[in-house]
Amino acid sequence: MLRVADLDTPTMVVDLDVMEDNIRRLQDELDTIGLECRPHIKTHKIPAIGHKQLAAGAVGITCQKLGEAEIFADAGFTDIFVPYNIVGAPKLERLTRLARRVTLSVAIDSEVAARGIAEACREAGTHVNLLVEIDTGGHRAGVQGAREAQALARMITDLPGVSFRGLMCFPSRPGMRDVFAETRDLLARDGIPVNVISGGGTGAHRISKEIGCTEHRSGTYIYNGLNVVRAGNCTIEQCAMSVLVTVVTTSCPGFSTVDGGSKTFTNDSLRSGASNGYVREYPDVYLERMSEEHGVLNVSQVAEGVPRPRVGEKLHIIPNHACGTTNLHDVVFGYRRHAAEEIVEVEWPISARGKIR
Amino acid sequence: MLRVADLDTPTMVVDLDVMEDNIRRLQDELDTIGLECRPHIKTHKIPAIGHKQLAAGAVGITCQKLGEAEIFADAGFTDIFVPYNIVGAPKLERLTRLARRVTLSVAIDSEVAARGIAEACREAGTHVNLLVEIDTGGHRAGVQGAREAQALARMITDLPGVSFRGLMCFPSRPGMRDVFAETRDLLARDGIPVNVISGGGTGAHRISKEIGCTEHRSGTYIYNGLNVVRAGNCTIEQCAMSVLVTVVTTSCPGFSTVDGGSKTFTNDSLRSGASNGYVREYPDVYLERMSEEHGVLNVSQVAEGVPRPRVGEKLHIIPNHACGTTNLHDVVFGYRRHAAEEIVEVEWPISARGKIR
Repeated sequence: MLRVADLDTPTMVVDLDVMEDNIRRLQDELDTIGLECRPHIKTHKIPAIGHKQLAAGAVGITCQKLGEAEIFADAGFTDIFVPYNIVGAPKLERLTRLARRVTLSVAIDSEVAARGIAEACREAGTHVNLLVEIDTGGHRAGVQGAREAQALARMITDLPGVSFRGLMCFPSRPGMRDVFAETRDLLARDGIPVNVISGGGTGAHRISKEIGCTEHRSGTYIYNGLNVVRAGNCTIEQCAMSVLVTVVTTSCPGFSTVDGGSKTFTNDSLRSGASNGYVREYPDVYLERMSEEHGVLNVSQVAEGVPRPRVGEKLHIIPNHACGTTNLHDVVFGYRRHAAEEIVEVEWPISARGKIR
Repeated sequence: MLRVADLDTPTMVVDLDVMEDNIRRLQDELDTIGLECRPHIKTHKIPAIGHKQLAAGAVGITCQKLGEAEIFADAGFTDIFVPYNIVGAPKLERLTRLARRVTLSVAIDSEVAARGIAEACREAGTHVNLLVEIDTGGHRAGVQGAREAQALARMITDLPGVSFRGLMCFPSRPGMRDVFAETRDLLARDGIPVNVISGGGTGAHRISKEIGCTEHRSGTYIYNGLNVVRAGNCTIEQCAMSVLVTVVTTSCPGFSTVDGGSKTFTNDSLRSGASNGYVREYPDVYLERMSEEHGVLNVSQVAEGVPRPRVGEKLHIIPNHACGTTNLHDVVFGYRRHAAEEIVEVEWPISARGKIR
């Protein structure tokens, strides 16, 4: 019987009960408001966890990169959405191979991307569903409004090898209601059905419903993290993932330093002078700053006479951003609490870690 | 013959001529000023590159984590310094196994860390050299001044299984001259020799010399990067490493988006409104922001009529921080320029990537 406390550090650990509650809670909320659940696997990158999401009621999964989709296809997933412009010969070749074995949908926002996929599918004798991405104001991808979306949808309906399936945005924002309604009206007049409107973002599923989406993509909700707590979308107790670290020195007055830094937690959402990680064992202590392999805890707010972290002590730190943290680790240990002990139940390889292509 | 331009993206690539120049230039400078070179492998995490550093004249290497040291010991490195407090039973067991096959030095800053290593070495019948780390004001690790250093050095000389070898700091700062001098004086009166004073930091080797160091640990210098350029310690032309990316969309006015984000580049040294990556092909374009798999280039400073990045075009982006970037990639391609072409010469697995334990 392996206890979390016996694991070497730093190592990523997940409270399975909390994680399973997170899966159920979102699925229940989406069922209640009438949205399909298509979780984004970028947060966990582990097929076994994706299967739990499907078992709870998800209609399929979302993968940001082809490399992730390939890993999940290998693991038996049959309905995959890649909300990402797929460009260039090597990726188009992989895309068509993937399309032969799963139901594959891809988002595009340009004629060149749509034509590239269509041509590759035609040559390979396979088929991909296309969704048109509309920019919600993030200015990273997506067409600029209903007229552009209409033009792309019209073009797609004339192409071989691809079908127009609908619209997509990230993140879901209230202002999209009018754009989606206008696009649907324009396409209705063209006789082009909009079967799917896909929204996304942990905590944004009610907005997805309000703006007319049919499905919602959440990723971070499965583990949560300090950013999600700060946004008011979960409690600290609903954070399933933490990194077990060891205090390696207390030699600098006011600080205790642990054996995980930016190569363990990432520098995502780094805030100067504020907490970059919640220390479960010491709520008055916070992760102030990081170098690559050191995390420096500020202990100056611990009252006199109250215990402080000691060299060799192990701590659970909940990071700012679960998705970035996952991508730095090769394995995660799943555990359950039995009385006062955390007992390891499973060790999962993070199979899609580093699949950036 | 594989061209860099034919590689799928995003992928890390290294100009071997520039890298070899960087190795030679630092070695020459250290030879000139009379410091031993003990490069930090955290930046490249590739044994084949470490061998190039040894061949150029390095006396040994520096590894921040035991897991890195194990990989490099497997690859034939025989003199390894781990400037990191090694704490806890699993690591002490690995440390003694490693000490049996290489000359191993470790930095400590507490009695508990020193006693743990000594006890483990005594039990295992092996030996480790200890250096006492002195805090240079970073407040992450290190004892607070000469008296504390003396106390630890005295204690170490009385312990079995370990030898006191000297002092260590990171980064090298001018203010350390007096602390090192005072510590050496105190230890001289105790009859304790200080064989090594180890300084560190890319660009800080002249400071290491000034404060009395005998060796210098540089890591980033081998690849350099935008942070090193900004610090005035290299030119853009001396940046050996870049990430090859593909433009996936230009749909948002004023921006072009590439297929690498924080899971490709890290968010290290992220600066709002400034450049987080230098685009070699378009000096007027800069990496403004990142999400996990998207990098958003600001193209608003490109003059009218001048070409801008197009969908499908491949670009070389030099990141802020090479060390963090390396840790996100499984392989790196080394190339050399032949006339106008970049020809791939080698594909190296990044063997010590993710070795955070």
